[in-house]
Formats: sequence, structure tokens, C-alpha cells
Amino acid sequence: MRALRLTAWKSDPELVEVPDPEPGPGQVVVKVGGAGACHSDLHLMRDFGPGLLSWGPPFTLGHENAGWVHALGPGARGPEVGTPVAVHGAWGCGACARCRAGVESYCEDPAGSPGPGGGGGLGQDGGMAEYLLVPDARHLVPLPDGLDPVAAAPLTDAALTPYHAVRRSWPKLTPGSTAVVIGAGGLGHLAVQIVKATTAARVVVVDVRQAARDDALAHGADHAVAPGEGAAAEIRAGTPGGRGADVVIDCVGSGDTLALGVAVTRVLGDLTIVGIAGGTLPVSFFGVPYEVSVQTTYWGSRPELAEVLDLAARGLIAPRVTTIPLERAGEAYRLLESGELVGRAVVTP
Amino acid sequence: MRALRLTAWKSDPELVEVPDPEPGPGQVVVKVGGAGACHSDLHLMRDFGPGLLSWGPPFTLGHENAGWVHALGPGARGPEVGTPVAVHGAWGCGACARCRAGVESYCEDPAGSPGPGGGGGLGQDGGMAEYLLVPDARHLVPLPDGLDPVAAAPLTDAALTPYHAVRRSWPKLTPGSTAVVIGAGGLGHLAVQIVKATTAARVVVVDVRQAARDDALAHGADHAVAPGEGAAAEIRAGTPGGRGADVVIDCVGSGDTLALGVAVTRVLGDLTIVGIAGGTLPVSFFGVPYEVSVQTTYWGSRPELAEVLDLAARGLIAPRVTTIPLERAGEAYRLLESGELVGRAVVTP
Amino acid sequence: MRALRLTAWKSDPELVEVPDPEPGPGQVVVKVGGAGACHSDLHLMRDFGPGLLSWGPPFTLGHENAGWVHALGPGARGPEVGTPVAVHGAWGCGACARCRAGVESYCEDPAGSPGPGGGGGLGQDGGMAEYLLVPDARHLVPLPDGLDPVAAAPLTDAALTPYHAVRRSWPKLTPGSTAVVIGAGGLGHLAVQIVKATTAARVVVVDVRQAARDDALAHGADHAVAPGEGAAAEIRAGTPGGRGADVVIDCVGSGDTLALGVAVTRVLGDLTIVGIAGGTLPVSFFGVPYEVSVQTTYWGSRPELAEVLDLAARGLIAPRVTTIPLERAGEAYRLLESGELVGRAVVTP
Amino acid sequence: MRALRLTAWKSDPELVEVPDPEPGPGQVVVKVGGAGACHSDLHLMRDFGPGLLSWGPPFTLGHENAGWVHALGPGARGPEVGTPVAVHGAWGCGACARCRAGVESYCEDPAGSPGPGGGGGLGQDGGMAEYLLVPDARHLVPLPDGLDPVAAAPLTDAALTPYHAVRRSWPKLTPGSTAVVIGAGGLGHLAVQIVKATTAARVVVVDVRQAARDDALAHGADHAVAPGEGAAAEIRAGTPGGRGADVVIDCVGSGDTLALGVAVTRVLGDLTIVGIAGGTLPVSFFGVPYEVSVQTTYWGSRPELAEVLDLAARGLIAPRVTTIPLERAGEAYRLLESGELVGRAVVTP
Repeated sequence: MRALRLTAWKSDPELVEVPDPEPGPGQVVVKVGGAGACHSDLHLMRDFGPGLLSWGPPFTLGHENAGWVHALGPGARGPEVGTPVAVHGAWGCGACARCRAGVESYCEDPAGSPGPGGGGGLGQDGGMAEYLLVPDARHLVPLPDGLDPVAAAPLTDAALTPYHAVRRSWPKLTPGSTAVVIGAGGLGHLAVQIVKATTAARVVVVDVRQAARDDALAHGADHAVAPGEGAAAEIRAGTPGGRGADVVIDCVGSGDTLALGVAVTRVLGDLTIVGIAGGTLPVSFFGVPYEVSVQTTYWGSRPELAEVLDLAARGLIAPRVTTIPLERAGEAYRLLESGELVGRAVVTP
Repeated sequence: MRALRLTAWKSDPELVEVPDPEPGPGQVVVKVGGAGACHSDLHLMRDFGPGLLSWGPPFTLGHENAGWVHALGPGARGPEVGTPVAVHGAWGCGACARCRAGVESYCEDPAGSPGPGGGGGLGQDGGMAEYLLVPDARHLVPLPDGLDPVAAAPLTDAALTPYHAVRRSWPKLTPGSTAVVIGAGGLGHLAVQIVKATTAARVVVVDVRQAARDDALAHGADHAVAPGEGAAAEIRAGTPGGRGADVVIDCVGSGDTLALGVAVTRVLGDLTIVGIAGGTLPVSFFGVPYEVSVQTTYWGSRPELAEVLDLAARGLIAPRVTTIPLERAGEAYRLLESGELVGRAVVTP
Repeated sequence: MRALRLTAWKSDPELVEVPDPEPGPGQVVVKVGGAGACHSDLHLMRDFGPGLLSWGPPFTLGHENAGWVHALGPGARGPEVGTPVAVHGAWGCGACARCRAGVESYCEDPAGSPGPGGGGGLGQDGGMAEYLLVPDARHLVPLPDGLDPVAAAPLTDAALTPYHAVRRSWPKLTPGSTAVVIGAGGLGHLAVQIVKATTAARVVVVDVRQAARDDALAHGADHAVAPGEGAAAEIRAGTPGGRGADVVIDCVGSGDTLALGVAVTRVLGDLTIVGIAGGTLPVSFFGVPYEVSVQTTYWGSRPELAEVLDLAARGLIAPRVTTIPLERAGEAYRLLESGELVGRAVVTP
Repeated sequence: MRALRLTAWKSDPELVEVPDPEPGPGQVVVKVGGAGACHSDLHLMRDFGPGLLSWGPPFTLGHENAGWVHALGPGARGPEVGTPVAVHGAWGCGACARCRAGVESYCEDPAGSPGPGGGGGLGQDGGMAEYLLVPDARHLVPLPDGLDPVAAAPLTDAALTPYHAVRRSWPKLTPGSTAVVIGAGGLGHLAVQIVKATTAARVVVVDVRQAARDDALAHGADHAVAPGEGAAAEIRAGTPGGRGADVVIDCVGSGDTLALGVAVTRVLGDLTIVGIAGGTLPVSFFGVPYEVSVQTTYWGSRPELAEVLDLAARGLIAPRVTTIPLERAGEAYRLLESGELVGRAVVTP
């Protein structure tokens, strides 16, 4: 079969011919329907080098995958052949406390996982190919009616990641509360939709781009603010009594956005860092409002993926998707890199 | 001033002239903007008699009240005169564990409360008058912009009661879950709107009346079912995988509706009895699905009332209101009793 | 190998020779260290008959199991051979929403599980044998230091079941609260220890037997009460302000104990039915204090089992165990049936 | 009456004669039984100056107070005269969302509170006097049997503050988890006792002082570690699997202790800054384990104070107290400043 493989650090991936995968005991082969092209893939091609990670090339790209069950290995108890499925991409050890609860993105024994790296497309072979070998049937979540693999693929990361960040803050997103989403790009535009679909909180979106702000307003945001001087005051003015935001989801994560976030967060709020722009927030007793919780989040759990699929199947969240055939997959990354892409690119074999 | 008073058990209330109330230390007088007419008032007029309760007539009716601050007694730290406010109607002792957290509807020391009964209109003088004496400023919640006292009055009970019942079940109302609301009348039609506004759960509504079912569908219910043979199967068919409802809110509370509720509830679900039709549900180890929680709820807390007001001010819930002037208040109850009333009757001085 | 098998309904089990199990793909064979003898086994021998359940004899008894990993089938990713492990006994489908979160005791797709019944010893072959075939490595939880398989075996049910019931009520077991444990037998005497180890709640224990009450007091119960007239008043008198119990764990589950439970539970409390004596509690709006949650619980989850093992390894809970060799296993049940047994009987091969 | 008053910034307090307070409407006068001397009082005497705060001298010191109800103002609904009470010291507006839930330490409308500053002893007159004027009866919590005002006074801050910090982390303090308490002084030695009394978590304590470490071990800590090179490794070695701490309560709050805290915290843990030594923790995506929540906490709520009193009345926590008569109150601060004091100094009139 054909596969888009990263063969060396600091190189572009190549479309090459590789053997079709065969499922061993407990494993499943998925016929790929779609594989999302993610910004973090660009980091893999451009920024990493030997020795920085415990794993490396060669491997097939693609960590946002969906398709159909193609073959079950001996003893594999998965959905029957032909079932459309999303693939939860974090392949942990399956036995530690986090994995036992389905939160494999936070596996505490990565050495116990079935292969190097963080899953398929991240050290192990991913979904930018005709078939994907999944090491255990537990990583598959059947698609609900009304959702096809192309639409489902980006949900496994671009929607699951902000979903996890928003979901953990639900207890603070009561009526009367305000959520601020910083950055209305691939993850942020879905964060807005997720807050609106699952809570009655007001949503204020912050983005430098007028088009992104307009799009967020069209998808339910209550206010849209451009960053810069006066942004914090404008955001606070959009909250009841000017008290500030109960929850800030920072999908950028730069020093500037974190500073804005803490400037608008209310006592007892949440400030969650989802974006990896590399910023640092200095936290001190009098530098942050009392009991504001500051944390990062990374990806989401398998039970949460099932919930995300339900939201999308019912039209409550709607990622923008551009499909690109596998033979032109390199183009997907060029579009992504240039900023020309609207929404998520999904590569289809 | 004029006041609609119940002067004896098993009698109709009378509109009489009484002295204007004067606020003592810490007390507040509210100029009434609206007072909701509630089914439970009919129970007071028809069903109770001497010795059944620890309190009794005479008192002014009206336990769903909103208006404007009119006068503050010495030392009262309330909103300034003229501020539009909703009155949280459960007037507890203010000192027990429940009251300390704002949940005065579950006050554990009613003997320590400032007067008999459950609050104004329930043993103490209520809001079917030109002015209402509120025993402490803490019971007032300022109205958010966009909400006037007439619209706010019924929210203090007809919306607050189902809101409390739904809110406590939020952790189970995840995407992919189903809520069943039995009875789409005064409380139930708001329960449907509350679930839709605050969660991404599916809503199935059950009501004998076609009009009530149609109205619920128009307000966001996903399915509407008539009770009777086959209802349970039809409800289950409307849930993902036929697994049943995660949460049932029974706004009727008869033996039949409780039996229906338990027949459609999923393992680990909630079955909450809000309606007081007097039914009994026999609970036994094998008679109810594993770990379904069965409970009643009564009214709601002061913090919850603030959340309800926010939902209504933003148009996320919309009770139907018919206004009736105080001099024709008796008529409100006759309409209520006859079933001719659409929505809630609010009496205005 | 030798195995204690139930070969027909309404019969005593027999010790017979059977082939040693061989692990298939993903499966694990455990060398049994101990298998608890449980009251529910007596129900299997005495009370059931053809057609009542979806499964039946012949199968090897024993659903409370611990031992050492003996052999891993192809592809099985379990602890290495020789590792001491407890076996989580609820073997679900592994794919439904409950199983995805590790709560296989509430599997919603039992037809999707690897075999009939509720797990080993309950339709499939259990641990009253020299070896136990476990259908998936995920069911194994390694034993912490200081805990051997004989001590661990009964923890997988007799401790896990009350642990789950208590744990779900933790938010109500704050300082100042009271837990009432009804029945201080196999499960109840551990429920007392679990509440004391994991919360600062007061514990009142109810049991007909003086010895059981004394034992509970010796293990940390604050009060012990004999059932009968005056019991409810005595229990309430042992709670702060006489307000009643925040949580009742009924390990008997008869009509009488349920009536006692509801008579002593406080508004907003929990009344949890763990015992299967077959009683019924009639729940109605005015028959139960406001918002008392009534529910059953059944067994516990895999993550909870790991927590139970930690408590036992550190000596915070200490089940009483009597060991009996496999060849005299029938005797274990005779002792259990006669009531002569102190604590749990663990059968050792 | 006599009162210990701060009459100017950067000065020692003076014992002077002032008029006895008279309760206005809703107010209560408490006859002081004990008033704790707190480190933050030293900050008031030494570090602040004009313009730094919105309030200032002169006022009577003492924000940790307990005593007996002495006189109730008109309309005050408090415990009857003579009742022993603790005084919750955070006197907020009583009407904002935080105050409505009893969390007046996080009042969002301080301008709406009855006086300047943060309560009695912090801008308003405090308890280092014979009588204390409390602006509203809601701030009083009756003492449970077995607790006298001298023992209760320091609980209102020195125990309430760590209690709030620990309590919010209860969901993470499951069996198998580890709490690290940094700093075993006034607050920290109680944090250790609070974790042990209310959870089954392991506790590791960190302190430079051998005596403080020994004392913590005597009160239930599982391990005690001296800070410095190797401390992080030693702490991790004391956690199951070396995975690190689920919860860190930093009662010091210096740059060094925060760096130690983050070095030992596990993915999904809590790192809570209670001490005000002025350190800063730089938080960035890859600088802190995934989803570790970092936050400060300040004081505690009124419902929590009731829980703290219950723990102390039952002997589950036991602050060390040294009593000093009011005429020698200055000495209490000198001992506190010199570090000679063991436990909390309570000033008694």
C-alpha cells in the first residue's frame, strides 16, 4: 500500500510503497477513511532532531484517524469488519491508573505501551496510508449514525483536545458565567462551539484575525475581541458586573495571550493552556486572582471521544474540513504551513 | 393596601385592605411587580385543615414574587431603593448547614426561621398585595438587565424548581445522554428548556396532551411521546443504542409516571420526583436498574435563582405568562383550577 | 488440575479433575493463591434453576480470586509471569461506555462479553481450582507490597462492594456528618473500616448480634445500635443536633432495615442498598426526606479495586480471613451456611 | 474596655482603653474568649505603609476570634446570649455570588461590605480586646461540645486556611495517592493532620527543622524530608511507583518551595500555594506536568469553619496553643517574631 512517511528528522515526508499491515493477536487493521493533517506534524518535520525524543523516523504520519474495521487479529474483540470507527490516538500501556480509566493521553508507563512514541503517527505508523494497524481494539470508537470517517478524523484531536479542556471546567460554566476562548483557529473555533453546545455560558472569543472573529460570532460567540491594548478591559466589560471570566481556554499559549488570560480571569476561575506557542505565565500569590487554577491540558480520553462524536453526529459542532487525496498529501502540509488553509485538511486514501 | 388573603382553611381567598408593612431591623419592603399563582395555592385553599401543618391562615397568598426595593429597615444591607429584585421564597433560619450554603429550601431548623411556614405566601404574608415584607435582605436577588418583575415572578418557583432538579443531574447529562421529562406543564415545559439550554443531552418529553407535546418539540425537545402501552419502548428507542434515559425528571409524580420512569432509566441514571401527584415507587435490589438514584427535589437555592434569572434575561428559557390584575386574582385561580390557563398566571397589583 | 465445580442447579459442588487451562490470544492464566467463598455462591447452589438466568452449570465456582500470573497468551500485555495479582471479577464487553471507564460491573452489552454470566465463578470457570483462565489481561491488578493473594482474594468482592458504595457518597461524608452501616457482617464490617479510613465521618453501626457490634466498635465505629423499637431514635441521638444520617449503607437490604434507613436519613442524604435480602422501600414525595437519594450498588470498578488493595496493604482495612484447603472447600460453604464462620473463608489450592 | 490597637503603620500595637462596643441592628457583640496572634499581624506592624492598602490604622488587632455571645442588636437573629461561638473572620458584602454561598473570603464586592478591609483585625476592630463587635450574626458559628473559645480561636484561620486548601483537593486524595505538605509550621502542621483525618492519602512533609519534621511524623505523616538537593528524588521515592505527589500544599510559598513542588507533582495533580513567602512559579506548557492545577488559596468559607470545629471537637486535629493574657499581648508577637513560640499564641482578655 502507499503511505506518507517521515523518513528522517528535518525533512519532508515521502509517499512510498510499504507492505499492508497484518493484525497480530488482539490487533485490528483499519481501512483508512480520513487522516487529519495537524500543525504538530509540521513540528515533526521542521523542529525536532536526533536525541530530543525517545523515538523518531521512519514512521507513517497521521494521528487523527478514522475509517472502517478491515481485519481483526486472533482474539481481538473489536467491532465487526466493515464498522466505521474513529481511532483514539493515544496508545498507552493500558494498565496504569490513567489508562485504567481510559485517559491514555496521560499514560504513566509509556515504556509499557506497545510501541514507541505517543501513538500512530507519533513514532508508530499512523493513518496517512491505505491501512492503519491499531495495537488494540480498545482504541476504536464506533461512529454514530450520520458521521462518516472523513468528518470524524479531525474530531479525534482538533475537537477532542478543546473538548477535554472545556469539559473539565463545566462545573464553573454555569449560567451567568463567561468563557473566554483565545485563538479561534483549528482548535479554538471548535472550543467556541463546544462551550455553546454543552453549557449556557457566555463566550468571548479573542483573535487577531477579523475573519476568525466573524466566524466565531457566526457560530455562537457572544462577543469577539481583537487582542492589544484595551482588550482586557473590553473582555471584562462583556462579563456580568465586569467581574471577569470564569474560564479562559488559551488555544495560543504565548506569553502575551497568557498575560491577557490572567488579566481577565475571575477569582476561583480556570485558566487552561491548550496552545503550545511556548509562553510562560509567572504564578505568584498576589500575581494571580485568588484560587484561579492554571493548568495545561493535552488531548483527551477515550470516553470523551465518544461524546465528541455524538456532538458532531447531531450537528452541535461542525469542524470545517478540506479533503485532499493521499497522493497530494504533501500539499496539505504546504497549505497548512502557508496559512492558506481554511479549517482542517483531511487526507483521504 | 389591598391583599389577597386566605382567612380560613377550605375557603377561597379574599381581597381585603390591610396596613402597609413597615420594615424592622434588617428587613426590606418590596413593592410587588408580580406574584405568580401556583397550583400549590389551590392545595392550601382546598385540601388542608386545622392541625395538619404547624401554621395556617390568615395570611396573604403569593410565594412567587418579584418587584422593586421599596424601603430598607434599620441596618438592612440590601440593594438600594428602586432596584428590581426577585424574592427567593424559602425563608429559613439562616444559620443551619443548609442555610449557610444558601439552600434555605432545605432549612433544618424551621423553628429558627423568622416566622411560621415555609416563607411568604406559605404561612407568612406573601406577594399578592401591593407590598411584601421580606424578613432579610439576603432573600433578594437583583434582576439582570432585560428582565422585569412580571416575567421574573414565576421564575422563582416554576423555573427554579425544575432548574434545581436538572442542575443536580448535570454530571450525567453529557453528550450522548438522554433526559426524559414527564409532564410538560408549568414546570415540565421549563425543564425541557433548561436541559436544552445548559447541556447537550437529548430530551424526550412525555405528556398526555398533544398541544403540550407540540409545544415541547417547538422549544427544543428531540422526541415527544404519549404515555400508555408502548411508551417505554418508544422512549428507549429514542436513546442511543436503546440503552435508556440517563436522567428522568418526573414533573407529575403519579404511580404510573414513576413506573414509566423506572422502566426507561439506564443503569447509573437519576430518577427525580418533582411532581406531587402522590405516587409511590417501590424500590428493591432487582426492581430498579443498578445504581439508579431515586430522589425527590423541592424548590431550589438562592444561588440557583441567580442562575435562572440569567437564563431568562438572555432568552434561553422563556416561561409563558398571563397577567391578571390583583382585583381579579381569584379568577387566576379559577382558570388554573379549570385547566384553561396557558402558562403561568402572574397577578399584578 | 482439581476444580470445585457446580455441575447442576440445586446441587452441591464437586471437586473434580479438569484439564489445565491454556491461554489464547490476549488471555492470561493465573495460578490461584486464594478464592473467597461468598454467600452468593450459596444462592447458586440452592435457589436458582433452569431458565432463571441466561447461563448455568457446569462451571467452576469462585469469583473472588487472587494469585500469580502463570502464563500469558499470544499478544497478552499483562504483568510478567510470577507477579502477584488480584483478579477483577466483572468481565464485561470492554467496549461500552461503562467498560470504557473501567466499570465493567455495569457493562451494558453483556452479550459482547467473552463468555456467559457475570465473570469467572458466575457462569464461566472461576478460581476454586489450581489455575484460573482470565479472558483479558486488563482484569488483573498487581498486588502492592505487603499483600499476599490469600488476603487479597476476598478484597475483590467483600471489600470492593462496600468500598464502591461508600466512595460514591464521599462528597456527603464531610466532617460533621454521620454514616450508618446496617449489618456488620462480611461486607458491613469492612464498610465501617472503609468509612473510618477514608473520611472523618462518624459511624453508627446497626446489627442484631452483640459480637458484631462489639467488633465494629473495636474497628472504629462511634456507636453501635441493636435494631428494634427505639433504634431510629437512638441513631438520631448519635448524630450532631439529632439531624440524622448523611449516608446509610444498608448491607442487609430487608424491608425492616430499609424502613430503619429511611427513618434516620437526613434531607439531602444517601440511602444505598447493598444487601440482597429482598426488601422493598416505598418511595414517595412525602414519604422520604427531601432529596435523599435511594439506590442500589453492585460490586465495584477496576480503578476502585486498586484503591482497595492500597488500603489493605497499608493496614487501613483488615478483613478477617479463615483459610481452607481446596480439598475441603465444601466445608467452607457448610460453615458459611451455618453461620459458624468468623470472617471470610478463603479456599487455597 | 482594654484593646490592643495598631495606631499607625510601622509601629508596635498599644494596649489602650476604648469604649465598649454597642450592637446596632443585626449586629452582635461577642465577649472574647481568645484571639490568635498571627504572622500576618507582624506584616501589618512592619511592612505596610500609607497608600498600599485601601484601609489602615487605627484599629484593634486580632482576626482569629472566639468567645461567647454577649449582646444582640435589634433584629439580630444569632445564637442566644452566652452561647460559645467562633467568629468567621471574612466579612464580605453578603450579597455577591461568593458570599451567597458562604465563601466571604472571596467576596467580589468588598465595597459593599460593612466596613473597610478584610474583617475584624484587618482594618476593622478585631478581637484583641474584651469585646468584639461582629457586623452580622451570620459570621458566628456555635462551638460544638468539647471545644472552648481559647482552643477555637486559632482554628478560624490557622486551621481553616489549610483545611480549605486540602478540602478542594479531596477528589484527588484517594487511597493510593500522596499529599506533600511543604512547611510544617503554624498552618502546615495542621495541614498534615487534616489530610490524615479526612482521607486515606499518604503524607510526606517537608521542613528545614528537624523538630518540625519529628512533630509531623508524630502526628501521622508517613515520611518527612529535609529540603535541599535530593529532596525531590526522596519525595518521589516515597510515592507508589515513584509517580510523584497527587497534591502539594505549599505552606511556605518561596521560589524554592514552589520549584520543589512542581518537581514532585504528578500528571493531573494539584499544586496549591498557601504560604505568602513571595515566590513565583513559571508555568509553561512543557514546564509543568500535564494538567497539574496550580493555584493559590486564601482563608476558607463559613461552612468549612463548621467542619473544622467538628474535627477539633472530636480530637481529630489538635493545634498547639500557648495562652497569653491581653496585658502581655505584645509579648506574643515578640515570641512569634523570634521563632521561640511553639504552636499558636492565643491572647485571652
